[in-house]
Amino acid sequence: MNKFISLEHGAGGRKSWELIKNLRRILKFTGSWENISDDGAVFALGKEKLVFTTDSFIIDPLFFPGGDIGKIAICGTINDLVVMGAKPIGISLAMVIEEGFPEEDFERIISSINKISQETKIPIVTGDTKVTNKGKIDKIEITTAGIGLAKRIIDNSGLKPGDKIITSGDLGTHGVVILAKRFNYQTKLKSDSQSIFEEIQSILKYLTAAKDPTRGGLAANIVEMAEKGRVKIVLEEEKIPFKKETLALTSLLGIDPFTLPSEGRFIAGVRGRYALKAVKILQKFNKEATIIGEVKKGRRVFLKTKIGSLKPILMPEGKLIPRIC
Amino acid sequence: MNKFISLEHGAGGRKSWELIKNLRRILKFTGSWENISDDGAVFALGKEKLVFTTDSFIIDPLFFPGGDIGKIAICGTINDLVVMGAKPIGISLAMVIEEGFPEEDFERIISSINKISQETKIPIVTGDTKVTNKGKIDKIEITTAGIGLAKRIIDNSGLKPGDKIITSGDLGTHGVVILAKRFNYQTKLKSDSQSIFEEIQSILKYLTAAKDPTRGGLAANIVEMAEKGRVKIVLEEEKIPFKKETLALTSLLGIDPFTLPSEGRFIAGVRGRYALKAVKILQKFNKEATIIGEVKKGRRVFLKTKIGSLKPILMPEGKLIPRIC
Repeated sequence: MNKFISLEHGAGGRKSWELIKNLRRILKFTGSWENISDDGAVFALGKEKLVFTTDSFIIDPLFFPGGDIGKIAICGTINDLVVMGAKPIGISLAMVIEEGFPEEDFERIISSINKISQETKIPIVTGDTKVTNKGKIDKIEITTAGIGLAKRIIDNSGLKPGDKIITSGDLGTHGVVILAKRFNYQTKLKSDSQSIFEEIQSILKYLTAAKDPTRGGLAANIVEMAEKGRVKIVLEEEKIPFKKETLALTSLLGIDPFTLPSEGRFIAGVRGRYALKAVKILQKFNKEATIIGEVKKGRRVFLKTKIGSLKPILMPEGKLIPRIC
Repeated sequence: MNKFISLEHGAGGRKSWELIKNLRRILKFTGSWENISDDGAVFALGKEKLVFTTDSFIIDPLFFPGGDIGKIAICGTINDLVVMGAKPIGISLAMVIEEGFPEEDFERIISSINKISQETKIPIVTGDTKVTNKGKIDKIEITTAGIGLAKRIIDNSGLKPGDKIITSGDLGTHGVVILAKRFNYQTKLKSDSQSIFEEIQSILKYLTAAKDPTRGGLAANIVEMAEKGRVKIVLEEEKIPFKKETLALTSLLGIDPFTLPSEGRFIAGVRGRYALKAVKILQKFNKEATIIGEVKKGRRVFLKTKIGSLKPILMPEGKLIPRIC
């Protein structure tokens, strides 16, 4: 029987893992590579570590409140580097553009990329531009890759019992803005799309593990951190900073807010005794930064609901997860 | 008046330069970046140089005699690094796949990538896999980025009067194979798609400049080398190793063979006194490696025809250049 690749393969949940098993076969340790993965690879360069990562973006809509495809492409790659503890040194920008794409829109995307590059002082250093026949691609596709240098790698497997789980701010807001725009639902929310470089740097020394919850949202990312760290995590429902409008819209659409992507937030593990201090520092950037749970001995992730019951949080399955990023 | 991006912007000729002027605005020197460009960026790391490059591939057909999209994506990035004098240390692989793409074809592409990675011992170290709704992309798009380390950067601006121009083998064969497949024209030719790492390494010390003539072919690449080196180049028509079938098909289609891409060849400058030696070494890999011209004082590129007249070679214009890579 012929098999075909389905949307579920790309949704960031369980099916994605199956598809990239193929990739994992070709991701081989060689020479000085200390760690290789989809998130980012680590190469030993003397006392420093070189981190290398990539991400593709084909999104709809291209422009949305708070950002556009250029902004999330650049911030996405910056953030993938910084959650690993690296200082990004340069980004590559490859674009495939459909013939007939308005130059004005292209200029807007380039300006947006330029703005982030200047604000973060992270340069775009190399690129590629291809133009395809009409219909070969829908408007524009952007792939960024990035390299960074780190003194210490923050691993997403580093959680230990006793750690607290913190978030740098409200979660899922990017996802809900994209959904709202697609469903023509009025909202004043703006995407959280941004570089988290400064935020991560401010509490780098306290971090035991970190991840930016993009595809698959908080659910996929917290489950991955628990599995890789071989620990149990208990999140407290009341403490998770979803915006009211986020909960209103996800409830209306029957979507689990835990699966909504953020594009400018991170979740992290911090040793228990530093958790309040770390959150206080993060609140200077975003006052919704907070402790959302804790790490225990055991396995799996649970949500302690408002009424005190424990509900398992699972890796999202199928294409119910909105394909937003 | 609204302006739209056209195919000419992506063909690798003059119009491409206009489009990427926008990009050049955002490609800024910062920190230890010594050189930044579309071809590859150079970062000083102690005594070594880190080279970083990227390329996107959306091609038709996906499979062709001698290769497939996976092979040219990996080889393309390896080759971009090695023509700059770098030893590739790792490649990233980002794929956007259309829903419904046959898993069998996906496996074939992954196997092909794996084969090159193992043969060259250059690992794929990080990646991204996105699946889009039907119609958002035509089958599959691949973007590779690569990093390499170099002791000495081979610049494509390094030509000096007295240098000889050499080619590592037959030119334009990849382009003619793709055209033949599209026009259903019978040929026994196979794409030249391959890694040129070993070939370049074997004569690295003799090189003054090098480039792999992909988009825009020999014409675009030799004009760029002449412009950047501020020299005149005279190529000898009789010495350029186009395959007989390449010339037959381009003549039939009215296409200039000088604009046809190769995916496993390089053209380079070598100091006059080392040219024969370098070519002899290269001929162990490909017996069509040869000297095709020389560098003089002055500007522009000329072709000395079989009857002895000088004909200017210009940067290809418009979409007459077949969009093949």
